[in-house]
Amino acid sequence: MDLDKLRLEAQELDRLDPLSHFRARFKVSDESLIYLDGNSLGRLVLQGALDAARAVEAEWGESLVRGWNEGWYERATVIGGKIARLIGAEEGEVVVSDSTSVNLFKLACAALKAKPSGAIITDTANFPSDLYILQGACKWLGRESDLVVVSGEEQIHYALQGVEDVALLTLSHVCFKSGFLYDAKDLTDWTHQRGGLCLWDLSHSAGSVPVELGKWGVDLAVGCTYKYLNGGPGAPAFLYVSRKLQDRLENPICGWFGQHDPFGFGTTYRPAPGIAKFLVGTPPVLSLTPIEAGVDVLIEAGLAAVRQKSIAMTDLLIRGWETGLKPLGVELETPRDPARRGSHVSFSLKDAYQIDQALINEFNVIPDFRAPDVIRFGVTPLYTRYGEAVDAVQRMNEAIQSGAASRYRPRGQAVT
Amino acid sequence: MDLDKLRLEAQELDRLDPLSHFRARFKVSDESLIYLDGNSLGRLVLQGALDAARAVEAEWGESLVRGWNEGWYERATVIGGKIARLIGAEEGEVVVSDSTSVNLFKLACAALKAKPSGAIITDTANFPSDLYILQGACKWLGRESDLVVVSGEEQIHYALQGVEDVALLTLSHVCFKSGFLYDAKDLTDWTHQRGGLCLWDLSHSAGSVPVELGKWGVDLAVGCTYKYLNGGPGAPAFLYVSRKLQDRLENPICGWFGQHDPFGFGTTYRPAPGIAKFLVGTPPVLSLTPIEAGVDVLIEAGLAAVRQKSIAMTDLLIRGWETGLKPLGVELETPRDPARRGSHVSFSLKDAYQIDQALINEFNVIPDFRAPDVIRFGVTPLYTRYGEAVDAVQRMNEAIQSGAASRYRPRGQAVT
Repeated sequence: MDLDKLRLEAQELDRLDPLSHFRARFKVSDESLIYLDGNSLGRLVLQGALDAARAVEAEWGESLVRGWNEGWYERATVIGGKIARLIGAEEGEVVVSDSTSVNLFKLACAALKAKPSGAIITDTANFPSDLYILQGACKWLGRESDLVVVSGEEQIHYALQGVEDVALLTLSHVCFKSGFLYDAKDLTDWTHQRGGLCLWDLSHSAGSVPVELGKWGVDLAVGCTYKYLNGGPGAPAFLYVSRKLQDRLENPICGWFGQHDPFGFGTTYRPAPGIAKFLVGTPPVLSLTPIEAGVDVLIEAGLAAVRQKSIAMTDLLIRGWETGLKPLGVELETPRDPARRGSHVSFSLKDAYQIDQALINEFNVIPDFRAPDVIRFGVTPLYTRYGEAVDAVQRMNEAIQSGAASRYRPRGQAVT
Repeated sequence: MDLDKLRLEAQELDRLDPLSHFRARFKVSDESLIYLDGNSLGRLVLQGALDAARAVEAEWGESLVRGWNEGWYERATVIGGKIARLIGAEEGEVVVSDSTSVNLFKLACAALKAKPSGAIITDTANFPSDLYILQGACKWLGRESDLVVVSGEEQIHYALQGVEDVALLTLSHVCFKSGFLYDAKDLTDWTHQRGGLCLWDLSHSAGSVPVELGKWGVDLAVGCTYKYLNGGPGAPAFLYVSRKLQDRLENPICGWFGQHDPFGFGTTYRPAPGIAKFLVGTPPVLSLTPIEAGVDVLIEAGLAAVRQKSIAMTDLLIRGWETGLKPLGVELETPRDPARRGSHVSFSLKDAYQIDQALINEFNVIPDFRAPDVIRFGVTPLYTRYGEAVDAVQRMNEAIQSGAASRYRPRGQAVT
């Protein structure tokens, strides 16, 4: 295998990379580790670590309950306002709350109450976690027969045009498995023409690809903060409700943080105005706090520069695959058209789980395995180097050739 | 005012206190501050601070996504198992997840699906946040006319016996405002006799009063971890589902952490066996982690000793009130019978908000104001000293006599 030409190209790209200095903002304890899983868990921003330590020691430890009056109470809204800048929304349209799944439940139920009949369209490339939430919500609302699960963009268009009435289209903007990037504006327009609402899951696109919720006329969105937003493991998620819908939609989970006057302790729920009504309970402050630094660093770098480098790196990965992996029977699952892919490249291959284990344990590469046969290489422009993309392909080639499949057990096979 | 006799008694109690050494396990940065709000936010356990720092720097910063295989994935279940020991439940009946409000929504919906008709009984002494959740759930399930909100224990009994059919009784075990402690076993028995299920909110009782969910035959419970369990601001909550109900009840929010094989990425939700099906999304690891140390210190001290000291301290507060506050027109809102009160004593008084502000800003006491006219003194046996209880009464007497009401604006009055 000859990746030397690509390696030289990567060296030159790294030398000229205007984002290269951002790597120093992150904790990197092992320079030889190639971390290609920022789309599962973003790295720790050093400022986020300082903020987390302050939240524990000074805010909780010393301010005690006064912390609520010294920043905690507004934090989910302040950070939501910053996330809004990354996804083309306005202040007052985004807030941090709960998990992505709980937020999807809240917004899907709200949409389905506003649209009491019509198809609920999604596809099999959506996160399974989102499909589960939709299945549950439909069951509880007696709408199971409205749920239409298709496969792929073409079938989505067939469904939008084929059903009598559309209530909701909900998709992942970037597919977690293939990296396919939907044309969100086009599908939102189509959904509106059919009378439905659109709900996008931005978990794999916020902070990695340009998102313009306002310009695209998107109704609703959710997304996680622990992938490209670098918020930390299980950090609370965000939700977006277009300002024009905020008065009309209702949150099924009526919590005190969504109440008009939470400290008035009235016994009847009266929703807060605006986006706040989609909040529920007391936010997990320690997990909430570091999100801000993760978002700040993206705002500083600018999404245009991030996207440009992301495309150049996924392009390098695809060209590397052509030389180093395709000849070994590895298939490319990600679109070659950069306009149709997010910030990761997926390969399907035989014994993918065992190769993934070998990469982690023997080759110091952390990709991501997705059952049954996919390995994802996610690139995160603020800390992934071009050279790492080429080296990762090289190491995967070596892992396959070294016969890793015989050294590891298939996924789920009991250790005996 | 002569509190000297009580002060001498308190000194002697502190000298003999078998729990006194536990105070050193907590961060106390200002020894002169009397913190009586551990029932809003428990103090930081020093071990919890170490664990939180490790979760940020080593687990997130260095293990990166491997953290999920090195403890994160099981953490909510492990800590749930420890909380179970504090509330008389078994391992596999308690798990940490979401906020108290989201957990109440899940379990109330699950119960109401299992009991599709009958009254849903609660009372006005319940947390307003719980009333909001119940109002929302009833609305979404078309059960608004089933919701019966009464006032006080006697009316609960009337309701249980007066309605045709009971679906659910749900109450706060210790009332957040008055500190009243319900006889949970008796009310659970009555509810069962009427064919209903019982759901207790333990937010003010877990870690402060003896709870025996198993012995009492309780069906369902929720509770927060940031009060007496010292889990940190907004730390995720716990939920309990009796083992005998786990197969029968369904979680309306079908999340991937409650899925049979979350990393199989199947497209159809199939609930996990046991308590895990009540999990939803990815847990907020940094907020989850310090709960363990908060629970460990309670297990080590033992709930019997904690309760004994709590009763002795609330008794001191009540006797202090008799001497120092009752003559000033302050009324006692908490039962004098120690068997019927939790770990806080509540007073109602004129200008309560302004007195609360004066205590915080001028007298270095942190109590809790609860609209419209209540000040709560919460005692937390692992770090509150007997002497502090007496001193707090003294300082409140001084705050009232100093005319604090004229120096602060009433709550909610705009600053001009």
